[in-house]
Amino acid sequence: MDARSGGRTFQPVMNAEEVNSYLREVFPQACSGEVPDYRALSISPGRCTVRLEAGYQHLRPGDTVSGPSLFALADIGGYVCALSHIGRRALTVTTNLSINFMRKAGAGTVDGRCRILKLGRRLMVFEAELIAGDSEDIVAHATGTYSIPPAD
Amino acid sequence: MDARSGGRTFQPVMNAEEVNSYLREVFPQACSGEVPDYRALSISPGRCTVRLEAGYQHLRPGDTVSGPSLFALADIGGYVCALSHIGRRALTVTTNLSINFMRKAGAGTVDGRCRILKLGRRLMVFEAELIAGDSEDIVAHATGTYSIPPAD
Amino acid sequence: MDARSGGRTFQPVMNAEEVNSYLREVFPQACSGEVPDYRALSISPGRCTVRLEAGYQHLRPGDTVSGPSLFALADIGGYVCALSHIGRRALTVTTNLSINFMRKAGAGTVDGRCRILKLGRRLMVFEAELIAGDSEDIVAHATGTYSIPPAD
Amino acid sequence: MDARSGGRTFQPVMNAEEVNSYLREVFPQACSGEVPDYRALSISPGRCTVRLEAGYQHLRPGDTVSGPSLFALADIGGYVCALSHIGRRALTVTTNLSINFMRKAGAGTVDGRCRILKLGRRLMVFEAELIAGDSEDIVAHATGTYSIPPAD
Repeated sequence: MDARSGGRTFQPVMNAEEVNSYLREVFPQACSGEVPDYRALSISPGRCTVRLEAGYQHLRPGDTVSGPSLFALADIGGYVCALSHIGRRALTVTTNLSINFMRKAGAGTVDGRCRILKLGRRLMVFEAELIAGDSEDIVAHATGTYSIPPAD
Repeated sequence: MDARSGGRTFQPVMNAEEVNSYLREVFPQACSGEVPDYRALSISPGRCTVRLEAGYQHLRPGDTVSGPSLFALADIGGYVCALSHIGRRALTVTTNLSINFMRKAGAGTVDGRCRILKLGRRLMVFEAELIAGDSEDIVAHATGTYSIPPAD
Repeated sequence: MDARSGGRTFQPVMNAEEVNSYLREVFPQACSGEVPDYRALSISPGRCTVRLEAGYQHLRPGDTVSGPSLFALADIGGYVCALSHIGRRALTVTTNLSINFMRKAGAGTVDGRCRILKLGRRLMVFEAELIAGDSEDIVAHATGTYSIPPAD
Repeated sequence: MDARSGGRTFQPVMNAEEVNSYLREVFPQACSGEVPDYRALSISPGRCTVRLEAGYQHLRPGDTVSGPSLFALADIGGYVCALSHIGRRALTVTTNLSINFMRKAGAGTVDGRCRILKLGRRLMVFEAELIAGDSEDIVAHATGTYSIPPAD
């Protein structure tokens, strides 16, 4: 048992492949192509990992990954948490996201390791830890809330 | 006197044109072109307004402006606050940003009305209110902190 | 019309006296006595002002008002915003609050000037600006979200 | 090695007993007595655990631990992180703290499990996970920033 998941049993209802297929449909700009900019790497109970392949368009001067690109990775991480654990509800929206930037990340991959802190009837709260490349350096850390629409 | 500026006298050292000229240099992707995606509209003591011209690449399905695009507008608003009030210090970086999303914004302009809450020796804190088009509807609200490098 | 209220017509349903009477009932420890620690000063459409009378128990070493006391003022400000605009729903709870501390406040009064940013069916988002004594110095700034229970 | 600590070697310079002795000095109201309201339970590289013994004065109607008491626990957790890893620098102050409330906690103990996300020259960023009693339920989650004064 993982203490950090709060002793709850989270049960994913979609795997990474199903999530990516859905992301390609709804975010064709960012999530399709042979190697999409953003994609889900793995899904597990209460958690997911998402990856940004940071290319030229994600960089700022100094060749570091831009804040909005890191924000987008954290936000997509929350979306994948919600999607994989409650299924396709297109209206799920971010209500807030708070992000701390800690180190610069260069071009390459940035992974967002995400964890559901609460999955309620109306709100999901998650955190995302952003790690650059093969290091274990935390580039940024975010917490956010998604609003969950009423089930039909 | 504006109560909300804390009774402090903030004095800008750059105007909107100078700021935009600098933004074009350092963020050529987002801030240049005939009508740049992001630009400063106005600078006044302790405040600035920045504008996003939201086009196709800033939209999500449903034709609403994406979270990362709104985040970028708030972040640029903070950058313009810092730049216009302390001058060109390229190393100024966002340390955190917390954003609440409140309403959807469609394609068109989104204005970020920004205000410096504190301008210290090492940190600047600001807030940004994001307003869509000609409405007075608040689309999102952000507060953030920029780290200011030591003066040379 | 106030641009910052988003062009919405907020209509309070309780005045400051009614709010304080209710606060005394539900928070007898902090909100009663001849001069209660925390109380509402005024209510207006989309806004309220709350006051902390900072005494010994609210101070930290150096005779500055403690972080938790300022947090409590911002939180009560959000509660008073919700209470005065949607009426008595005891289950209204804070879901998140983000606070920036900017200057020290000494013993005496601290006022929280609060504004509703969004009053939705399920969530209320507000901001609070904390001002010490008669100055216009911003001591702290907070944004927060209250969850609104379904109407009976 | 702990992936979540970012591969850094954090080395505490004070243990829990030394930290508590210091807290008693600087926060006599909250941190002294036979069983102080707030105290450090343990310190380890990059981490600490702090405990709130929630009594009558920390409760709200419904006998749940109040938001300001949980805020104070998270804030003290960040202070103990800083104190135990950089030593006694009385001027260390919270610059911001963002907290998500997730479940109610009843009277009894609440533990704050804290982790340093970044320990820079000027800023320390941390997160705190608040757990009630013997459960593993996350009551609240916070991230915060402490400003570190220049070393003498």
